[in-house]
Amino acid sequence: MREAYHVELEQLAQNLAVMSGQVADAMERATQALLDADLGLAEQVISDDAKVDDARADCEEQAYALLALQAPVATDLRTVLAAIHAAESLERMGDLALHVAKAARRRHPDAVLPEQVRDDFAKMGKVAVRLARQAEQVIKTRDVDAARSLETEDDAVDEIHRNLFTVIMGNDWPHGVAAAVDVTLLGRFYERYADHAVSVARRMVFVVTGKMPGYGSDEDV
Amino acid sequence: MREAYHVELEQLAQNLAVMSGQVADAMERATQALLDADLGLAEQVISDDAKVDDARADCEEQAYALLALQAPVATDLRTVLAAIHAAESLERMGDLALHVAKAARRRHPDAVLPEQVRDDFAKMGKVAVRLARQAEQVIKTRDVDAARSLETEDDAVDEIHRNLFTVIMGNDWPHGVAAAVDVTLLGRFYERYADHAVSVARRMVFVVTGKMPGYGSDEDV
Repeated sequence: MREAYHVELEQLAQNLAVMSGQVADAMERATQALLDADLGLAEQVISDDAKVDDARADCEEQAYALLALQAPVATDLRTVLAAIHAAESLERMGDLALHVAKAARRRHPDAVLPEQVRDDFAKMGKVAVRLARQAEQVIKTRDVDAARSLETEDDAVDEIHRNLFTVIMGNDWPHGVAAAVDVTLLGRFYERYADHAVSVARRMVFVVTGKMPGYGSDEDV
Repeated sequence: MREAYHVELEQLAQNLAVMSGQVADAMERATQALLDADLGLAEQVISDDAKVDDARADCEEQAYALLALQAPVATDLRTVLAAIHAAESLERMGDLALHVAKAARRRHPDAVLPEQVRDDFAKMGKVAVRLARQAEQVIKTRDVDAARSLETEDDAVDEIHRNLFTVIMGNDWPHGVAAAVDVTLLGRFYERYADHAVSVARRMVFVVTGKMPGYGSDEDV
């Protein structure tokens, strides 16, 4: 049974890595669509989201099968549940990329973002995508140390996000309420995406090692 | 084993009902704090959030124990997993009520909301809390029909939420960017809370009946 469990867990982990890649691509393209007012790219992200939803359903089915057929206990059980939680967060990350793409489409052919905050979003997008790619790498390379740097990267997103509020609430914001509302919501989408990416990467480490990073053992999780 | 499974599932369901009540209370108080600029009430919601987090951890531990000791399969397994997902959504609802309370605290002694949108938030708060209480009732009364009305109620929240954007982006919004940003974020907190409440209620129906509302059987979930 242990042998079968490990083979099936490995397949599940690979599918989570694929999902991580999908939502990283989605956020990369959505950010590009946002920055360049690229309607085609926005449409692609919007239509591709169904694939992420399907992948999540597949991951859950694999996890159910693993639980039903192998009845794992202790760390093995927690590992499968970590995979289920990771799949849920990844689907949510896909939804958040979708929201960014929809904002780009809604305002097209106008740009959503005033020039003043364009760089902030370029940076947030870059870090958010990197976080998702790191989650993918944890599974592919078993390099769990890479995952440890994620919290620092997430802090960078939070910092840019906080700074955005200072900018749009400043007396010299000339772009009006509608642009401020767009920036507020978009900023929140990136911040939530990054939070989920950190949570996914931590759970990926668990799926690979049976231990949560930053904790002594799964008992503390 | 079936007997033990049902006793333990019943305890888990009761704890989910308690959590639903906690997050309904949290959103009710947070909304009151927001509408009345009531600092004491806001502080109470903020300090009570730790109880919701603890309750979620307890639910997960109960679910783990149930999976490890009873190794349920088929519908029984899906029921336990539905409970795990419900606990996650309930914790998130607690976080969203916390965000509302923190907004009330941040602006105190000023009111966060301009008079113009006060009624909209009073209404959204009322429906959001009712959604959470319905999730609690599904477990307590086994009245799964009550859960079916939830999607209509959620539509009401979405409608008010959309209308808010029309108001703050209108030419006659005299309250400036900062108030618009607050309204934007708060509107989103209520909308997400309501979405999670609907998802929780649907999963509660599953926990009680083994069937998802609106679907023929768990096979379609």
